Amino acid sequence: MTNDICQGFKFAGVAAGLKKNGKPDVGLILAESECTAAGLFTNNAVKAAPVLVSAEYLQKGACQAVIVNAGNANCCTGEAGMQNARHTTAFVGQALGLAADLVAVSSTGVIGLPLPVEKIEAVVPQLISQAAEGAVWEFAAAIMTTDTVPKVITRRGSFNGREFTVMGVAKGAGMIRPDMATMLSYIMTDAAIDAAKLKKLLKVAADRSYNTITIDGDTSTNDTLIALANGLSGVEITDEAGLQAFGGVLNEVCLALARWLVKDGEGVTKVVNVLVKNAANDADAFKIADTICQSNLVKTAFFGEDANWGRILAAAGRAHAAIEPYKTDIYIGAVKMVENGVGQGREVEAEATRVLKTPEFTVTVDLKLGPGRCELITCDFSIDYVKINADYRS
Amino acid sequence: MTNDICQGFKFAGVAAGLKKNGKPDVGLILAESECTAAGLFTNNAVKAAPVLVSAEYLQKGACQAVIVNAGNANCCTGEAGMQNARHTTAFVGQALGLAADLVAVSSTGVIGLPLPVEKIEAVVPQLISQAAEGAVWEFAAAIMTTDTVPKVITRRGSFNGREFTVMGVAKGAGMIRPDMATMLSYIMTDAAIDAAKLKKLLKVAADRSYNTITIDGDTSTNDTLIALANGLSGVEITDEAGLQAFGGVLNEVCLALARWLVKDGEGVTKVVNVLVKNAANDADAFKIADTICQSNLVKTAFFGEDANWGRILAAAGRAHAAIEPYKTDIYIGAVKMVENGVGQGREVEAEATRVLKTPEFTVTVDLKLGPGRCELITCDFSIDYVKINADYRS
Repeated sequence: MTNDICQGFKFAGVAAGLKKNGKPDVGLILAESECTAAGLFTNNAVKAAPVLVSAEYLQKGACQAVIVNAGNANCCTGEAGMQNARHTTAFVGQALGLAADLVAVSSTGVIGLPLPVEKIEAVVPQLISQAAEGAVWEFAAAIMTTDTVPKVITRRGSFNGREFTVMGVAKGAGMIRPDMATMLSYIMTDAAIDAAKLKKLLKVAADRSYNTITIDGDTSTNDTLIALANGLSGVEITDEAGLQAFGGVLNEVCLALARWLVKDGEGVTKVVNVLVKNAANDADAFKIADTICQSNLVKTAFFGEDANWGRILAAAGRAHAAIEPYKTDIYIGAVKMVENGVGQGREVEAEATRVLKTPEFTVTVDLKLGPGRCELITCDFSIDYVKINADYRS
Repeated sequence: MTNDICQGFKFAGVAAGLKKNGKPDVGLILAESECTAAGLFTNNAVKAAPVLVSAEYLQKGACQAVIVNAGNANCCTGEAGMQNARHTTAFVGQALGLAADLVAVSSTGVIGLPLPVEKIEAVVPQLISQAAEGAVWEFAAAIMTTDTVPKVITRRGSFNGREFTVMGVAKGAGMIRPDMATMLSYIMTDAAIDAAKLKKLLKVAADRSYNTITIDGDTSTNDTLIALANGLSGVEITDEAGLQAFGGVLNEVCLALARWLVKDGEGVTKVVNVLVKNAANDADAFKIADTICQSNLVKTAFFGEDANWGRILAAAGRAHAAIEPYKTDIYIGAVKMVENGVGQGREVEAEATRVLKTPEFTVTVDLKLGPGRCELITCDFSIDYVKINADYRS
C-alpha cells in the first residue's frame, strides 16, 4: 500500500461512536497547503446539510481539508443540521489553524436523525495527530457504510517529462444511479491546475464514470465528488495537451472507482456492462440502456443466471425511445441471442447461460437505426439486496 | 360463486400442456351473440403478436369470443408468431362458426419461445363443450401465471329502473406499472353500449385503476384490457346519465381488480397507497408518487416494516418535480412523521411502525405548493420477489 501516496496529502480515520458496530466512522483529508478545488454534488432536490455547506465553500475554488463522517447523513435535519455542518467545519478549521470555509464536510448514513456533532468534535485531536501520507486506506475505511471493502485507486501520469499522481477514494454502496455520482468520492492530485479547469475535467470524468453506473436507481441526497490539487509535482496543467494528459488519468481513476462501487454494491454478484448501439441518437441510446439497467426483472434474471432476453427487449421497448423490435439484435457477451427481434434457440441460450455464470459480462443491444450509442454499468439484483435494505436501520 | 354470472357469457378453462406444472393454461370467453367491444393494449414499443392481432380485430368494435393462453407470451416470435396468433383465431372461429376477426386472442408467459399452437388447437373442442355461464373462475384460473389466486369481480348497477351487470377478470402478477394496465383483463357486461362510448369509458376506468398501480415498474409486452357488451339486460347506455351509471360500476370493477393484482403481486406482503397532495400541479404529483412507488429503497423498507421516511423524501427529491424539502410533511397512515422536512422523533416513529405492520396503509406526502394531487398504489419489495423472478423460467 506504500504506492498509495500522493505527496502533500495526509489522511486519518478513527472511531467516534457514530456507527453502532464501533468501527471507524470519521475521516480526515488534510493537505499541507491550500489546494485549488472543485466539487460536484447530488442533483436530488433534497440535499443534505453538508452538501449545501460544502458547495457554498467550494465556490471559491479553494480547500485544504475535508472532514467526513459515516453513520449519519445529516439530511432532513433542518436548521440544526445546517448549524451542525457549519460548526463541524469551524472546529476542524480551528484545530488546524484554517478558516472554516477551507474545510469541506461530508456525511453519509441514515437520513433524518440529528448529527451527534460532539462525537465528531471529540475525535478531531486524534484525527490530526494520526494523519499520515500513508493512511489513505484508513480514511477510506472510515467513510464506508454498507461497502464491504475500502476503495482507493492511485494512478501516475506524466506531462512534459514530469510525473504527477491522481489518487481517488470512494464509498457506495446503495442509493446509486446515474444522476450525479456515487455517494462520496474524493480525488487528490499533486498536479497544478486552476479550479475552473479542474471542475470542467471533473465533470467530464464524472459523466464517464459515476454517471454511468446504477445499483438500485435511487439518487442519494448526499452525493459528493470533491477534487483537490496541491501542485507539489510542479506539473502545470494549463494547455490542451496538459488537460488531455491529466484528464486521461483522472478519467481512469474515476472509472476504476465507479466499477468498483458497482462490484461492491449491495448484494451484487454480477457486474453487467450494458451497451446500446446504433440507436436513433445518443439520447435514445441512454434511455434504453438506463431502462434496462434499472429493470428489476432484468436484474433478477441476471441474479438467476437466466438468459431471459425477452425481459431485456421488453425493457428496451418501454424506454420511450425509437425501437423497431424486428430489427433489433441482442448479444450476451459475444453470443448473439436475438437476431432481428427473434430468439436464436435453445443451443444459443445454453452458450449465453455460460456467459451469465461469469462475474462480469456485457449485454449489447444493436438497434440498427442510427449513430446513437451509450454504455452503462449495472449489476444483478439479489436476495441480499433486499435483506440489506429491509434491515438497514435496525 | 353463483353470483358471478353475467347473462349471455360462457367461460371455460382447461389444461393444454403449455404450463410445465400441468395446470389449466387455456381459457375461452364465449358470448352467445356478437358484442360491441373495445380494447386497450400495452404502450410498450415491443408488442406481442396477439396484441397486434387483437388490436386490429377490435378496431371494428365487435367481438364474440376471446381465446387466452398462459405459459407462453407469443412475443418476439417474428412472422411465425403473427401467423400463430391469426391461426389461433381462425381455428377457434371455425369451431364456433364465427369469422376469425370476431375472436380476440391473448397470450401471457415467457417471451421469445415459439407458441405451440397445436396444443391450443387440440383443446378447443373441450373448451367449447365445457363452456358454461358459471365457469368464470375456471377461466380466471387458466389465465394465471405467477398469480396465487384467480381474480373475478362482479358488480350490479341499475339505470332507468333496470339492472345490469359488469364482470371483470384479471391476472397479474409481475411486469406491472402504470403505463397501461395489468397484463390481461377482460370485462363482460350485459348492458348495451356502442363501441366508441365503451372504449372511452374503458380508458377512464383504466386510468383510475390499472394505470395507478405498480408492482415492479416493468411494462409488459402483452398488456391487454378488453370489454365486451352484449346488451342482454336491455339497459341502453346512451345519454350522460347512463354513461355515469355504467361508468361508475365499470370503474369500481376495474379498481377492485387492480388492487387485487397488487395484493397478489409477486412476493407482496403490503399494499401501500401513496398519496401526493398539494403539489405544484397534477403532473408533478404523479412524478413524485410514481418515483416513490418505484423506489426499491422505499419498497424494501416497507418490507422491513421500517419507518424510513428519509428514503421517501429522497425519492420525492429525485423525481424532477417541484419540491421544497423544508415545507414538506409526510404521514404514515395518520401519523405525521415529518413536519416541514424534519422528522418528529422516536416516539412518532414507533407509532408509524405500528402502521407499517398492517397489510395495507397509506403514505401521504403533503408538498404545500399548489393544487396538484395524485394517488397511486404500490407494494413492498420482498425476498420472494427476487426468488420468483430469478427462477421464473427454470
